[in-house]
Amino acid sequence: MEEKSLVVKGFKASAVAAGLRKESGLDLALIFSDTEAVAAGVFTQNKVKAAPVLLSQQNIRDGRVRAVIGNSGNANASTGPEGLRAAERTVERVARELGIRPDEVLVASTGVIGAPLDTALIEGAIPELVRALTPEGIPRVAEAIMTTDSFPKIARFRGEAGGKPFEIVGIAKGAGMIMPQMATMLCFVLSDIAIEFDALRGAVTASVEPSFNRITVDGDTSTNDTVVVMANGRAANRAMRGSDYESFTGGLAQVMGALATMIVRDGEGATKVVQIIIQGASTAAEAAAAARTIANSTLVKTAFYGQDPNWGRIMAALGRSGIQMQEARVDIWIDGVKIVEGGIGQGGDAERSASQRMANREFSVLVALHQGEHEDRILTCDLTHEYVTINAAYRT
Amino acid sequence: MEEKSLVVKGFKASAVAAGLRKESGLDLALIFSDTEAVAAGVFTQNKVKAAPVLLSQQNIRDGRVRAVIGNSGNANASTGPEGLRAAERTVERVARELGIRPDEVLVASTGVIGAPLDTALIEGAIPELVRALTPEGIPRVAEAIMTTDSFPKIARFRGEAGGKPFEIVGIAKGAGMIMPQMATMLCFVLSDIAIEFDALRGAVTASVEPSFNRITVDGDTSTNDTVVVMANGRAANRAMRGSDYESFTGGLAQVMGALATMIVRDGEGATKVVQIIIQGASTAAEAAAAARTIANSTLVKTAFYGQDPNWGRIMAALGRSGIQMQEARVDIWIDGVKIVEGGIGQGGDAERSASQRMANREFSVLVALHQGEHEDRILTCDLTHEYVTINAAYRT
Repeated sequence: MEEKSLVVKGFKASAVAAGLRKESGLDLALIFSDTEAVAAGVFTQNKVKAAPVLLSQQNIRDGRVRAVIGNSGNANASTGPEGLRAAERTVERVARELGIRPDEVLVASTGVIGAPLDTALIEGAIPELVRALTPEGIPRVAEAIMTTDSFPKIARFRGEAGGKPFEIVGIAKGAGMIMPQMATMLCFVLSDIAIEFDALRGAVTASVEPSFNRITVDGDTSTNDTVVVMANGRAANRAMRGSDYESFTGGLAQVMGALATMIVRDGEGATKVVQIIIQGASTAAEAAAAARTIANSTLVKTAFYGQDPNWGRIMAALGRSGIQMQEARVDIWIDGVKIVEGGIGQGGDAERSASQRMANREFSVLVALHQGEHEDRILTCDLTHEYVTINAAYRT
Repeated sequence: MEEKSLVVKGFKASAVAAGLRKESGLDLALIFSDTEAVAAGVFTQNKVKAAPVLLSQQNIRDGRVRAVIGNSGNANASTGPEGLRAAERTVERVARELGIRPDEVLVASTGVIGAPLDTALIEGAIPELVRALTPEGIPRVAEAIMTTDSFPKIARFRGEAGGKPFEIVGIAKGAGMIMPQMATMLCFVLSDIAIEFDALRGAVTASVEPSFNRITVDGDTSTNDTVVVMANGRAANRAMRGSDYESFTGGLAQVMGALATMIVRDGEGATKVVQIIIQGASTAAEAAAAARTIANSTLVKTAFYGQDPNWGRIMAALGRSGIQMQEARVDIWIDGVKIVEGGIGQGGDAERSASQRMANREFSVLVALHQGEHEDRILTCDLTHEYVTINAAYRT
């Protein structure tokens, strides 16, 4: 991806090193829309919500946003009334420097939970952050919001709607505390399309479901998950019709899907990305439950790491997932190699072939239940020594 | 524990090396009651049930058992009709050699899932197994059923009922695929008490709940979990009264509790055993759900390994556990050190003290929700590099 091309009409961005992280480096980022943007967001379903999530949910309610400030190094979660005041002070200072209203500003934080946020560091850095705003600043934002991420995550889409070309650029962070039934850690998507709020909200909801709600790294839902989509209308397209709307929603789903895949690929310590596909479930909910149980089983995930086509662990996970199933009907493929038919293992040759496929960085596990017509899929990663190293030492 | 004292009147046991395991060593075991014993069992709730579980459930239904044969090295699970025939052949051969009926024999297997069981090896070894039966054989059974276990698990209790002394000796195996809502891998409990079937069944159900149903190693429920309790009446006690019944049930709970603790202490790769206690939940189900979610969180378990009192991860797990909670009411203690009060961290000194406690091999995490009156507790272990090593390489 060429950095210079990462521009969306009417948006500026910047990032600075405010000193919030143990390691040096960019840790405070700002996105600013020259004009009022239509905005829709999806936030964590964890009952413990970080202060920035609570404040952003309030400020995005009217569907209008001008700026988003984000930081890494501290999640400002489980910080009580002090934490909420810190988020409010941050937003007020940004608004003052930009000459906009505080309720036009969103805030997103990521990092350690439970440590007080040093607002002096943030407030001190905001003037510089505002001065640094530039149309070319998006890649720096992607860098500044990284925590245990090993690479910045950016995706783009170009389409046409209402007779005009438009762009979608999304950036995200996330590597741990990642699991379905939520929007993942942080994701900002910018577009110059002109779109009504209701249409945008519908597109965001539809796009989050098959992307961020279908990935898992460790089965843990974060307190800070935030997906925000801003559309400023600078593409100057006419009112959208059915096919335009499909083009935009398709593009948004593509950008979010690409970012979600990057998050799993960058899962803490992960060496493999595995697509779990369930076919023939009795209900949609059971298809999702089966996929999730397999995708979060530590025994299945360590077998992926060991390139061991240990389908007995997959079968055992299915058996405890609560779904309707008959063992004697289950077929299992690893990347197209059938290793189980009618509940019975297909022997050494099949397993050796499957093991060879598992040497690749990405492969699939397909489970056919033959109970009904429902299908679902989830992206997961392996569980490795490096995952343990990262998470046993995170704060110390 | 002195091996010579591990005798229960009227029971004999033996174990041999039948060649079922990759490593050499004992892998086939037999327990035999000279007279008919009253028996009750609890089996896995996984919908994928191993052949030996299906057969044993059938044979224990009338509450009368004479023998149990157990093997390690192969779980005989997900092996279809062939697997069921293998279990039946094993039971028939044991019955023939012992001169009893096949429906008086239970069978239990543990090891790899999905591989065909080599019945020739088992049938060939049964005559020797029967010849080797001795009252002193119980410790060898405990050794023969080990898989990834690092030590054999035996517990005993001596009590008095109906005017006579009685004994309870339990043996168990289990280190991985361990999680609540089930009986754990394999557990055989022998007693010489004279007890009615209904009373025994009630005592077994009551004892499994706070012991094996309150431990987790990896959140995975096995396909082979089996708890069998046999009582042969050789203590010759009179009909039991209320207090006798309490003595037996208390003893059974104590034996099962000790074995359950040993399983967690021997959890794959575990270096720490952690008691998770939830107080003040709105309902009993929510107390259990909160305890389980914390106990199975890979982020919490790796923090235990790192001796990091990272209570933010505990709070995040509570928030996604689906229970009623208010963050601002939550207090958290680690081994008596209060690190969170009213949702707010108590700072560096408290965390340093907590971290020192976490250097111990066993400690507790107490979460007070202040929502209601319900309490629950679960025993878990840490997630370590060694866990990944064991499970990435299990079959290869």
